[in-house]
Amino acid sequence: MLKSLTARPQTTQSNLQKTAIIDVGSNSFRLIVMTYLRGYHFQLTDEVRETVRLVQGVGATGKLSREAMAHAVDVMRLYASFCKALGIEDIVAVATSAVREATNRTEFLSRIQRETGITVRLLSGEEEAYYGYLAAVNSTTLSDGFVIDLGGGSLEITRVEGRQPREALSLTLGAVRTTEDWLPSAPPTKEQVAALRKHIREQLAALKWFKLKGGMQVVGQGGSLRNLARIAQKQRNYALDELHGYTLPAADVRKIAKQLEVLSVPERARLNGMKPDRADIALAAAIVVEECLRHADAESLIVCSQGVREGLFYERFFNGNGTPHNPPMFENVREASVINVAHLYNFQERHARHVAHLSLSLFDQLAVLETDSARFEPIERELLWAACMLHDIGMNIDYNDHHRHSYYLILNSGLPGFTHRELALIALATKYHRKGVPNSGEIGAVLQTGDEARLLRMTALLRLAEQLDRSRDGAVREVQLQPHEDGYLLETISEEDTSVAVWSAQLHTDIFRAAYGKPLVIV
Amino acid sequence: MLKSLTARPQTTQSNLQKTAIIDVGSNSFRLIVMTYLRGYHFQLTDEVRETVRLVQGVGATGKLSREAMAHAVDVMRLYASFCKALGIEDIVAVATSAVREATNRTEFLSRIQRETGITVRLLSGEEEAYYGYLAAVNSTTLSDGFVIDLGGGSLEITRVEGRQPREALSLTLGAVRTTEDWLPSAPPTKEQVAALRKHIREQLAALKWFKLKGGMQVVGQGGSLRNLARIAQKQRNYALDELHGYTLPAADVRKIAKQLEVLSVPERARLNGMKPDRADIALAAAIVVEECLRHADAESLIVCSQGVREGLFYERFFNGNGTPHNPPMFENVREASVINVAHLYNFQERHARHVAHLSLSLFDQLAVLETDSARFEPIERELLWAACMLHDIGMNIDYNDHHRHSYYLILNSGLPGFTHRELALIALATKYHRKGVPNSGEIGAVLQTGDEARLLRMTALLRLAEQLDRSRDGAVREVQLQPHEDGYLLETISEEDTSVAVWSAQLHTDIFRAAYGKPLVIV
Repeated sequence: MLKSLTARPQTTQSNLQKTAIIDVGSNSFRLIVMTYLRGYHFQLTDEVRETVRLVQGVGATGKLSREAMAHAVDVMRLYASFCKALGIEDIVAVATSAVREATNRTEFLSRIQRETGITVRLLSGEEEAYYGYLAAVNSTTLSDGFVIDLGGGSLEITRVEGRQPREALSLTLGAVRTTEDWLPSAPPTKEQVAALRKHIREQLAALKWFKLKGGMQVVGQGGSLRNLARIAQKQRNYALDELHGYTLPAADVRKIAKQLEVLSVPERARLNGMKPDRADIALAAAIVVEECLRHADAESLIVCSQGVREGLFYERFFNGNGTPHNPPMFENVREASVINVAHLYNFQERHARHVAHLSLSLFDQLAVLETDSARFEPIERELLWAACMLHDIGMNIDYNDHHRHSYYLILNSGLPGFTHRELALIALATKYHRKGVPNSGEIGAVLQTGDEARLLRMTALLRLAEQLDRSRDGAVREVQLQPHEDGYLLETISEEDTSVAVWSAQLHTDIFRAAYGKPLVIV
Repeated sequence: MLKSLTARPQTTQSNLQKTAIIDVGSNSFRLIVMTYLRGYHFQLTDEVRETVRLVQGVGATGKLSREAMAHAVDVMRLYASFCKALGIEDIVAVATSAVREATNRTEFLSRIQRETGITVRLLSGEEEAYYGYLAAVNSTTLSDGFVIDLGGGSLEITRVEGRQPREALSLTLGAVRTTEDWLPSAPPTKEQVAALRKHIREQLAALKWFKLKGGMQVVGQGGSLRNLARIAQKQRNYALDELHGYTLPAADVRKIAKQLEVLSVPERARLNGMKPDRADIALAAAIVVEECLRHADAESLIVCSQGVREGLFYERFFNGNGTPHNPPMFENVREASVINVAHLYNFQERHARHVAHLSLSLFDQLAVLETDSARFEPIERELLWAACMLHDIGMNIDYNDHHRHSYYLILNSGLPGFTHRELALIALATKYHRKGVPNSGEIGAVLQTGDEARLLRMTALLRLAEQLDRSRDGAVREVQLQPHEDGYLLETISEEDTSVAVWSAQLHTDIFRAAYGKPLVIV
């Protein structure tokens, strides 16, 4: 219970860059601030958002309205002041569908330039799709499939093959745009809904390449899509408070669309999970997503919380750092996520890597000695590695209960690239790395059959390795496992005093027996 | 949802000291490692514990048993290896009651010295009481009253007046010792229990000074006492997971003693909250605590999770730093706690202090302008200050949801010196400092009548001040409040561009109206 100041020194600001990215969106304007060391690490450090509804009226008149433009300029002026106050000179601002479709776009962009000093780059539909794709490929494991990005003005669809973008297009099917053009009243008439569906189907009909085949996934982006996912999670009483990586079933989207269809806007706003300022456009959003999944024959999509803003950032982040990839992307998103989170919480790298080394050595030796290969799948090995790397990050919060803090930090980090089930297994193994019998508790709902046994095995190997490096000095260099009576004998290989390690590990052989059904003797 | 490595640099190890403190206790041995900058900040960074039961047999034979000594030497050898592996040369080791009472103490201590190289200092009963007191006075607001420290071998009682120790003594009423001497079987007979109670009362009878008067508190320490408190919390379904600062009612101790009296050790071990290795001594512990509170006419005690180890540490921590206090203590425990936790999580000091300045300025101006003085009590001002100082510490975890992370960190920090109710109010105000209507949720149970309204007022002023320093540059230097129509007009005083501040704050005037019942206009 002792608490006080840490010895953590102040950040060296000298080598850090800050970039503000401003998304002049069709529904809302958003400014994010990224603080980073190019090619090495980055962190979101500020965010401001304002609903502007720039696209309102563009469908009918082909122009940005006088009111929307005035509001937009006010917000951009504020953003300029904000950047100035924060000392940020590197500003990346982009405009998307609403401005692209408007005939008075040039006037609008020069006015912003003139009145706020901010130069806004107008993205083409293909560019908008590309930056969404960049965000997806750097924060999910998407290799083959599609990225759909639902904005206020447009919908971008990108086909991805071997992590590369192959086909992309932009349709004016954004949530504000379709609401305005097709569902002007709430609740709408049946005819209005049918007309919107017909319109979407006509737009999608030409896309022969937008069809799911084996091994493909759909990744979905955009605020209105996240809003749907949040509602779906609430309706299922979902166990995790995390959107990124969530599998949103097409059936849920269908169900929510049906619910919204008969509600007025105030009634929608009261739905659990609904963002009030998206209540009016939520039905159109649900219908667009539903029709996309239907067209693609997809039973679900994976939610990606990142989008165009992060895509623009990744381009800047990797730029000039000799990344061998074009498009700029992490070689291995899952590994990058783990290392990033570990560094974010100042992990003791030597200890964490040594625990991983000893754990995986036990895993690999058992895989040879044991007969049940189902217990030694590569996925279990990878999750064990991640848990070893992250087991102590909770010490960043406090030594006391640091196992519980690690669990909290991992669940909240989301670990982009891992599924929620995998995230839960990693977090739970760290939670029990010191003591206790693993109990998945409230997040058990995201686990699958056999995962409780898997968690017990992961915890057992992590805990033994942790104890074998109890004094964090790597004294136990290697471990050697061999059959011994009806169980195993674990010998430590070391040139140093290993009494602390052996004594500590001996106190935790019970969990090995519980996990693998055999006694363990440590010498 | 963006996540990556931070820019946080590695700790400067050069100016940090590490001290290992080893408590050769009568029930268990414990080693803690403190990492600190003398007089400035400190943190617990490691802990090892082993139940040795050194006192076993001392009552009957007057000697430490051969087995207990052998076990003790093994554990001390391990602790020596542990310190060596961690590179810790500064080791403070103390022995208490069990060794003090044993006739073969000299032989025992020289054997430890000879076989492990560790010099163990034998504390007298008064010294043991003093270090417990030091821990209490540095982690609670105890000014007048008593500290009781229940160990395995002895019970220390200290009378405190004006934060100074006035009277102290040590009785051989430790939990292991009394179990062995008076309750050898479990469940015990009624006669055995009665005999133990009679013995305790005889021991306490002479302590005329151990009587509670107005304004006095009893602070309780020791593992067995914490164990009782944990059981009491579980039985009440207590809302917080925090022992330090918990008010343990005498009635609960009585009830638990009654429950334990009829149970065998395995049955006790299954009680919710019971530490299995304390199940055998829990009844004696409950009876000793119950009799102490009865003798002192106390209806409850405040649990203090710190004890002799931390007391020894504080002596070292303050030593040589010109502290004006003797005994060495924080001038203001509550303020020190807040500052310590803020530094622990790398708070942005300038921003936090400016938000506190603006918040308290609004508070003080309202106190003059408003008529209901109950809304402007000094305690509310102090809690508001703490919430302002800590509102952003969750950014240490992640920018996203940092309000929720601040709440988590504050609740887990425990903020020594604040009551659990105050802790909850501070944590809740930070949780809602960005948006939403404060909802005390599951921890609402620790609040009192009127606290929901108080929380709303605190949140309103914190949120307005936060928005007025939205760009974290202190552009709004001061605020000036004046009556305006049926509400107030807030003017910002600044030499700089305050458009971001005014725009941001204007979005949050609703909560002011909800809290104070009057509209607010910001210019």
